[in-house]
Amino acid sequence: MREVAIIGVGLTKFGELWDQNIRDMFAEAALKAMADAKVDKIDSLYVGAMSGGLYAYQEHLGSLMADYIGQAGVPAARVESACSSGAQAARMAYYEIASGASDIVLVGGVEKMWDVDDGTFVLATAADQEYEAYNGVTFPGLYAMMAQVYMQRYGLTREELAAVPIKSHKHAVHNPYAQYPFEIDLKAVLSAAPVADPLRLLDCSPITDGAAAIIMAPLEIAKNFTDKPVKIKGIGAATGPIALHDHKDLTRLDAVRLSAERAYKAAGASPSDISFVEVHDCFSIAEILVAEELGFFDYGTAGKAIAEGQATYGGKVVINPSGGLKAKGHPVGATGVAQLIEATLQLQGRAGKRQIENIKLGMTQNMGGSGGSSVVNILEAI
Amino acid sequence: MREVAIIGVGLTKFGELWDQNIRDMFAEAALKAMADAKVDKIDSLYVGAMSGGLYAYQEHLGSLMADYIGQAGVPAARVESACSSGAQAARMAYYEIASGASDIVLVGGVEKMWDVDDGTFVLATAADQEYEAYNGVTFPGLYAMMAQVYMQRYGLTREELAAVPIKSHKHAVHNPYAQYPFEIDLKAVLSAAPVADPLRLLDCSPITDGAAAIIMAPLEIAKNFTDKPVKIKGIGAATGPIALHDHKDLTRLDAVRLSAERAYKAAGASPSDISFVEVHDCFSIAEILVAEELGFFDYGTAGKAIAEGQATYGGKVVINPSGGLKAKGHPVGATGVAQLIEATLQLQGRAGKRQIENIKLGMTQNMGGSGGSSVVNILEAI
Repeated sequence: MREVAIIGVGLTKFGELWDQNIRDMFAEAALKAMADAKVDKIDSLYVGAMSGGLYAYQEHLGSLMADYIGQAGVPAARVESACSSGAQAARMAYYEIASGASDIVLVGGVEKMWDVDDGTFVLATAADQEYEAYNGVTFPGLYAMMAQVYMQRYGLTREELAAVPIKSHKHAVHNPYAQYPFEIDLKAVLSAAPVADPLRLLDCSPITDGAAAIIMAPLEIAKNFTDKPVKIKGIGAATGPIALHDHKDLTRLDAVRLSAERAYKAAGASPSDISFVEVHDCFSIAEILVAEELGFFDYGTAGKAIAEGQATYGGKVVINPSGGLKAKGHPVGATGVAQLIEATLQLQGRAGKRQIENIKLGMTQNMGGSGGSSVVNILEAI
Repeated sequence: MREVAIIGVGLTKFGELWDQNIRDMFAEAALKAMADAKVDKIDSLYVGAMSGGLYAYQEHLGSLMADYIGQAGVPAARVESACSSGAQAARMAYYEIASGASDIVLVGGVEKMWDVDDGTFVLATAADQEYEAYNGVTFPGLYAMMAQVYMQRYGLTREELAAVPIKSHKHAVHNPYAQYPFEIDLKAVLSAAPVADPLRLLDCSPITDGAAAIIMAPLEIAKNFTDKPVKIKGIGAATGPIALHDHKDLTRLDAVRLSAERAYKAAGASPSDISFVEVHDCFSIAEILVAEELGFFDYGTAGKAIAEGQATYGGKVVINPSGGLKAKGHPVGATGVAQLIEATLQLQGRAGKRQIENIKLGMTQNMGGSGGSSVVNILEAI
């Protein structure tokens, strides 16, 4: 099994991109990544996207994007796992390279979310359609239920919960690709429109257009393309119950824990080796639950730890230096790839004012639904 | 790179399955495949489906299906490449096993097409949305244009074209899973409702509900599960222009030729080694064009050769012993997996009255759109 590395990255601005359609955004990110890796030809292509069908009436994105970036002929496929589509696409590319079948593989994630009226309906197709979505439950409601149980059981206050988005926005100030690169304060969070109690608008990741792309290659040739390849030291992926009512405990995300255990094992690492992590903070409560499942904090303690500054620069582990889904934006299929880009930039020392010093290992965690799927990557600069 | 084999198969009846939803169909096929391979646990799951979103308002099929077949916890993802989604899912599983990352991998394909009013609109999302579908072109129209050019250039008659579906239906008579297991005659084809000239209703594959599943494993342990594993001797995949107007020649399918060349090279085989092939006959003309790109007949001659009986039992190569998309049915995401099942049954000698004798190698060819993507597998009984 060959070792695999990231050798180039490319990203569009995240936001409301009214002047770019799905293929324009994808091509911008893909061509930037190819330029960054100094390759003009790829061996294979993966596209991570949640719903080309419902968001853009366009399936067959592998074929379309290969064609549109001038690489028609290469093998290509789209990979979908709701909001974890991007990291799943990178996982497939990892296997294709590790097996020896291909060398230079482009993995792009994309979602064009602003062109339809009801993005929340589309997102609900990531839930259990027949038992959840059909009955009117959408993701803000599902995560609100998790938050209710967590806050009651562990005594987390509404003010402490607000620390999550406040931190994310603080980090995003230094991210030129972020959708909302500005700070918010406690008053703003507590007075934001209620969405699903206790969650308010500023607890929820936004609707975002955007694309992200990386070039992956076998580690053995990676130094031909970049001085500092970023090795994928371990991947872990897992599923959990797709429906929230099938979780044994509403404050636990089994798929996240399992995927983390597998990634730690594959990398021969433990939580204390991780300097920073990009987590899937689709809602404030998600970051707290995920941080616990990844092993950074004991169950019931991550909310308070984040509120005490343990998840920002100088703390125990920097969570979401990019600004996370909340402040950087969440173009669903692009998110997992964008997380890998932030990790790559941090590990290569290219993160500008967001740069974390003395990094040992980096981590990404990308989730689908209310914990129906999760992918964890552990990364190391070589 | 480890060698990979198919060790079990499972299929639902193809047709209008009003009593089964998407998860029921998938579970039926998946559990049959697991029983056939005598496994009660899998290491990883792939789901091939074209449009869970537009057909069933259900994305995140990897998570849903892992959960619904009692395997929550395993890594899972959906793979999409329009009508070639099934074979692309098997391609990803192939890499995962070849790399050494997993052993027992379930690949299922599924599509629930009858629950929406306008299946043809959904299928058109596999074309170039902004240049083709938006302007009202659907697939019958695209393939009709190919047929017009081919018939004019090579002198293929309307009667000769009809030989394709007549043969497919003749083969399907012996397939208990086929949607239309009955014969049709020349008069029926020529008097069928016109769809897009020269194509008539009986030149077009139908709208179908159905699911198909296979279990794949490393060849080195395959004999622990079955007396006769079917080795995937070579895979080739390729893309071509997604839009028909970008084809250099309307009678050529570059992606099919490229994918076949790659599969032949990987398998160390040539067309004369192939005893039978399941091809992607979404329309009568498609079977003819594909048979030429696969190297079985010279350009311009496959139509007449099929009409002369060269593509049925006793001919040069048996094309679509299962009945093909036309007569077996075409539940889009399931089709590529169902082709692999037919190949497995033939190679294992389990094809009943459809059995082909003295098989050397088998082949499958699964296509997306009007040649936007193609996957070819060459298979051998071990």
